[in-house]
Amino acid sequence: MASLVISEYVGARVRRKEDPRLITGRATYVDDLRLPGMLHVAIVRSVYAHARITGIDTSQAAAMPGVFGVYTAADLQKGAVEGAFTSLATDRVRYLGEPVAVVVAESAYAARDARDAVVVDYEPLPVVASIEAAMAEGAPQLYDDKPGNIAVDVTHTQGDVAGAFERAPVVVKQRIVSQRLSGVPMEPRAVAAAPDPTTGGVTVWSSTQAPHWNRKAIAGVLGLGLSQVRIIAPEVGGGFGVKIGAYPEDFILAVLTRLINRPVKWIETRSENFQVTNHGRAQIADIEVAAEKNGKILAYRMTVMQDQGADARGAYLAPTTTSMAVGCYDIPAIETRAMGILTNTMPVSAYRGAGRPEAAYYIERAIDLVADATGLDPAEVRRVNFIPPDKFPVTTVTGERYDSGEYAKALDKALEVSGYQQLRQMQAEARQQGRYVGIGLASYVEICGFGPFESSHVRVEPTGSVSVYTGISPHGQGQETTFAQIVADNLGADFDQVVVHHGDTSNTPEGNGTMGSRGLAVGGGALMLSVEQIREKAFKIAAHLLEASVDDIELVDGKYRVKGAPDRGVTLAEIAEAAYGGKIPEDMEPGLEATNFFKPADETFPFGTHVAVVEVFPDTGEVKLLDYYSVDDCGVRISPMLVEGQVHGGLAQGIGQALWEEIRYDENGQLLTGTLMDYAVPKASYFPVFKTDATVTPTPINPLGAKGIGEAATIGSTPAVANAVIDALEPFGITHLDIPFTAEKVWAAIRQSGK
Amino acid sequence: MASLVISEYVGARVRRKEDPRLITGRATYVDDLRLPGMLHVAIVRSVYAHARITGIDTSQAAAMPGVFGVYTAADLQKGAVEGAFTSLATDRVRYLGEPVAVVVAESAYAARDARDAVVVDYEPLPVVASIEAAMAEGAPQLYDDKPGNIAVDVTHTQGDVAGAFERAPVVVKQRIVSQRLSGVPMEPRAVAAAPDPTTGGVTVWSSTQAPHWNRKAIAGVLGLGLSQVRIIAPEVGGGFGVKIGAYPEDFILAVLTRLINRPVKWIETRSENFQVTNHGRAQIADIEVAAEKNGKILAYRMTVMQDQGADARGAYLAPTTTSMAVGCYDIPAIETRAMGILTNTMPVSAYRGAGRPEAAYYIERAIDLVADATGLDPAEVRRVNFIPPDKFPVTTVTGERYDSGEYAKALDKALEVSGYQQLRQMQAEARQQGRYVGIGLASYVEICGFGPFESSHVRVEPTGSVSVYTGISPHGQGQETTFAQIVADNLGADFDQVVVHHGDTSNTPEGNGTMGSRGLAVGGGALMLSVEQIREKAFKIAAHLLEASVDDIELVDGKYRVKGAPDRGVTLAEIAEAAYGGKIPEDMEPGLEATNFFKPADETFPFGTHVAVVEVFPDTGEVKLLDYYSVDDCGVRISPMLVEGQVHGGLAQGIGQALWEEIRYDENGQLLTGTLMDYAVPKASYFPVFKTDATVTPTPINPLGAKGIGEAATIGSTPAVANAVIDALEPFGITHLDIPFTAEKVWAAIRQSGK
Repeated sequence: MASLVISEYVGARVRRKEDPRLITGRATYVDDLRLPGMLHVAIVRSVYAHARITGIDTSQAAAMPGVFGVYTAADLQKGAVEGAFTSLATDRVRYLGEPVAVVVAESAYAARDARDAVVVDYEPLPVVASIEAAMAEGAPQLYDDKPGNIAVDVTHTQGDVAGAFERAPVVVKQRIVSQRLSGVPMEPRAVAAAPDPTTGGVTVWSSTQAPHWNRKAIAGVLGLGLSQVRIIAPEVGGGFGVKIGAYPEDFILAVLTRLINRPVKWIETRSENFQVTNHGRAQIADIEVAAEKNGKILAYRMTVMQDQGADARGAYLAPTTTSMAVGCYDIPAIETRAMGILTNTMPVSAYRGAGRPEAAYYIERAIDLVADATGLDPAEVRRVNFIPPDKFPVTTVTGERYDSGEYAKALDKALEVSGYQQLRQMQAEARQQGRYVGIGLASYVEICGFGPFESSHVRVEPTGSVSVYTGISPHGQGQETTFAQIVADNLGADFDQVVVHHGDTSNTPEGNGTMGSRGLAVGGGALMLSVEQIREKAFKIAAHLLEASVDDIELVDGKYRVKGAPDRGVTLAEIAEAAYGGKIPEDMEPGLEATNFFKPADETFPFGTHVAVVEVFPDTGEVKLLDYYSVDDCGVRISPMLVEGQVHGGLAQGIGQALWEEIRYDENGQLLTGTLMDYAVPKASYFPVFKTDATVTPTPINPLGAKGIGEAATIGSTPAVANAVIDALEPFGITHLDIPFTAEKVWAAIRQSGK
Repeated sequence: MASLVISEYVGARVRRKEDPRLITGRATYVDDLRLPGMLHVAIVRSVYAHARITGIDTSQAAAMPGVFGVYTAADLQKGAVEGAFTSLATDRVRYLGEPVAVVVAESAYAARDARDAVVVDYEPLPVVASIEAAMAEGAPQLYDDKPGNIAVDVTHTQGDVAGAFERAPVVVKQRIVSQRLSGVPMEPRAVAAAPDPTTGGVTVWSSTQAPHWNRKAIAGVLGLGLSQVRIIAPEVGGGFGVKIGAYPEDFILAVLTRLINRPVKWIETRSENFQVTNHGRAQIADIEVAAEKNGKILAYRMTVMQDQGADARGAYLAPTTTSMAVGCYDIPAIETRAMGILTNTMPVSAYRGAGRPEAAYYIERAIDLVADATGLDPAEVRRVNFIPPDKFPVTTVTGERYDSGEYAKALDKALEVSGYQQLRQMQAEARQQGRYVGIGLASYVEICGFGPFESSHVRVEPTGSVSVYTGISPHGQGQETTFAQIVADNLGADFDQVVVHHGDTSNTPEGNGTMGSRGLAVGGGALMLSVEQIREKAFKIAAHLLEASVDDIELVDGKYRVKGAPDRGVTLAEIAEAAYGGKIPEDMEPGLEATNFFKPADETFPFGTHVAVVEVFPDTGEVKLLDYYSVDDCGVRISPMLVEGQVHGGLAQGIGQALWEEIRYDENGQLLTGTLMDYAVPKASYFPVFKTDATVTPTPINPLGAKGIGEAATIGSTPAVANAVIDALEPFGITHLDIPFTAEKVWAAIRQSGK
């Protein structure tokens, strides 16, 4: 396996290559596209959560000024492979905002005005807008072939669970809700499409995390070769999981542009984003833990009910949660049930963590419940249950194979940097002063670095500058910088002249996008294969130029040198010049580039421990986050500053779930939180200055030893804050309360406690 | 070496993939670009052919409405590496139209109006506007370090030339002029440029034949890495050699856009195109031939004087002519001198053939002069001198190594298809009727398929469609079609889903553009390497899927089958799905693509014989082309229809030189032929229906056996028509007349003959 060279850039705090264009407003987002003859699209959406469509009258809308055309499902199906286009409802809608028709006009304004003039006749159907409603006896069904609205139902048992519960001196039990969230990317979704006269196909610009996946989906609907469909993810203003996969609008615009032979553009409004961009979380879990008096867990029972929304695109969510159920802990017996329930709401799928934050939240709450029940310190309950370092690689009772871990080390560091003992002392003193301070711990492990593979194409140009093409599709993660750091050190290239390209299927090899914290672990793994291959050729050319043996060449301080004679050396530029210009060994093909596909043997498992310190104000129910400490172990860190950035963003979203954010529907499936006035994303001022730290436990899974950091902090922070708030509420006898801890909810719980 | 599979597409008459977008006007040329905030550029050009600049006053122009700015050399030099920007004159101009300053404005109209308001003070210098003037005693010098205005002077001698001339019974001698031409592409040159905020560099769109060459040149001037400079050759409306290399405008726009941080565009007008786009030909040759009475040539003497124009960018031209001096003939002794003379005219460089048409023209005129002197039939003089087929590969007395040739075979076929004997009879009869019919032969050989290398990146996409990226940059040659034919047959791919990309340095590997008839011979050679590499992997995957041995797999009728069990087979789509999806051998990397660089061992040498039949009308001097027969041998023909297209276009240009076209300057270096009213490009109606035919002599130089056809017909046709016209003038005792045979010139010659 390729070995990582660490010289000037790898591991250094390097400024992001991405920032100058972003900061100066010179980056190109989908909405910045201005193509000659471009038309604008607005989508007519269902105003009901569940209804039959009995008629669509487009005549009035079609006659409005600036309107190019109004299209229903029947119109657009003509532009697709038979039966393949299903992005507009025909006879029935199952969630609020489901696309029904499309207006194309000369301006976005004209399109939206005409959209409101399309008359759709609905016959409302009874609605199930929650898991409880959908699972109720005699509940209306969304699909004929899904009795009980159950889309997923997977059980798993390992070990003697029943026996453990029988003999355990300590048993705790809790229903825990992981509320529905929205990803709220700064840029909502956006799609533009134009015919491509060169390929006879289509180009689609989409604010997406996985352009190659969209290519395959769209090519299938259009009946085109992948070589005829080009997907470009230009600058993407945040993804967080909700921009994975082709949405109805991607298909609609691709079909439209071919039918009308004009470029088209659709930009999602913020309210559409809340309504029709995938939601996240939306689970209810019933958990039960059997433990010894010393806190050692003997068995774990869990039933996860995932609200899938109106279709099962997020079918994997509940099984992901149950597969990560045991967290960092050496639990010998488990019984899980993963259920997916269909409801008349927006479908739920990936959102930063996608099933893993829920798992961590449940087990970390469980640990604190055991601590409560045993009177032990939550840190000790964690410590006594951790999988010990010498057991790795280890396969858990849920069947996951953890690569490497030093959980106690991360806990210890977190306790140390937070001054945990002093915090507890401070807490005790505060209580004596009538202040309700809480300290929350969370030790998490998560699964990331998913395959099936990732690709890399690296080209050393004839003057030694380097172009990198990757199959991942970063949209904020910063791999233009990270990858350049790796290339600079590992090929002896000029960092400023390493350019990383991504997000365009026309110049990147087949890839699997950026999601699941796979960018560096898998994309970087592919990069290392290419770097290694090029380095091997560069060594041969260097040896040829220096008239030395290949074995005597080494890359030191950015130059390819003869061992023992460091004055004799050549630069990458000189090697590249030879590679393209002539002076290479007789039997060598010119050029200096490589394309590689890295297929990781397994996933990686980052981990860490977070400590949250909160104060609850009982008169108002308000929660204040006083301090936050994170110790995250994502393996080898190429760019510590970018890791910190990911941690900061992750904390903001994880804490946001704990304290403020929630997507809510009423019982008719109408959205109650459709604007940023209702959906409470945190502001920077809500947070203390985060104290972030790290341990480094490399993974053996990829050549970088890097695990992934995109989701870790989100996963760790929700339970840490939840545990802290509940810890603060301990004097009121409260052992659990569901997130988000809005002032109203906390106030009510305190009132109800009667204390 | 890879072996070419010929199945459904290779060798078939396939419709061009390029045509639908071109015919329907949906192709994108540089002028079609509309970038937000784009400004327009006009160039202030010298109105003198030779002058000192004593002052430039831009104030009036800068104050005009819509003008963004006016820039001189000093302004733009600030945006370049010190000393590297030389595209605007500072203190002296040496040719008419030399760029002096730049106007940038909101519209092209405003830019051109303001251009005319820039006041440049000139102090005129004496002009040398022709080879004769430049070589005259005491002629003014263009450069201090070029005494006598001589830029090139190379001599070569091989064999006993003096002895041969002493003993030869037949000696002929002639000064021959190959007049100056313009390439006259349908689309004049065009450049647009914009900053690239992602690379920190620049994107330049240019109507060019060699984007990678421009990239290197521009990166050098800007001090950027090649990875930061992207050159796109979008649709290019013809090149013909004159669009090779970066022009002043490429550098000017690249520097400008970085300085002013706005996209800029410059479109050459037709009159600018005549004035400042490289000219071609412009040679005078003095030749002398020593021969036996049977026509066998004993020695050849040649002095070529190349008019280089105001700089030596075409320094290679005269040496190319002398290196190809002997044509198809086994000439034992040679003495050549290749001279390049600087004049105050537009520099001369590549134009369809670039030095080879001149060589063929001279030797083919020489052969006819020997025929005249010996009374032999011109066909017989050719035949007696041909290098025989069994001598190949052969190194000529000029040092060129010809790969393969069957010259007599092509001659015989040409005589046969033209009915040469009957033509001679018809000629004799016509003369008796007082009609002046002429028959001209030309047997040419040319050198093409130049290295140093060409690149290919082929990607089989996961559904089996194929994306091809090539380092060549076709601009009419049709390799989107030819390459797709090769890929379809050789990988079993769907022809409609093979897409060939070119002309964008951001997605193609380093390449050397399209010129010198190298597209198929070298670019196709690289393609074959990639195809072979992919086929090898595809065979392995097929064997794995079919549970057979790799040696038992064959590609038959578009499917990978088990030999002897043709029902057991898999498609490329199935193989691709496995390659990206999983079912591949354990130790195999995923993916199905290859990048290759083909470095040909040598050039290739297409050849052929053309027969022209003309009639001259002595009263007016008018020449009418009655019939035209071509037999061209370009080796293996992948796409016979595209070969024919190249032959037709080549004939039009070669015949154009013989009969109509000429760029003329007056003695002050003012252009007399600056519009399409003065410069007589032929119309389709000027030509008879060409009768084209072929022989096929494969080359061993590349895996396709293809030689190149882009320039062949141009090279063969000028001497064929010239010989025909002079043959028609034989009754007037005229043995030579310089092309073009304008009516005026022919009429005057007839008059002067006194017959």
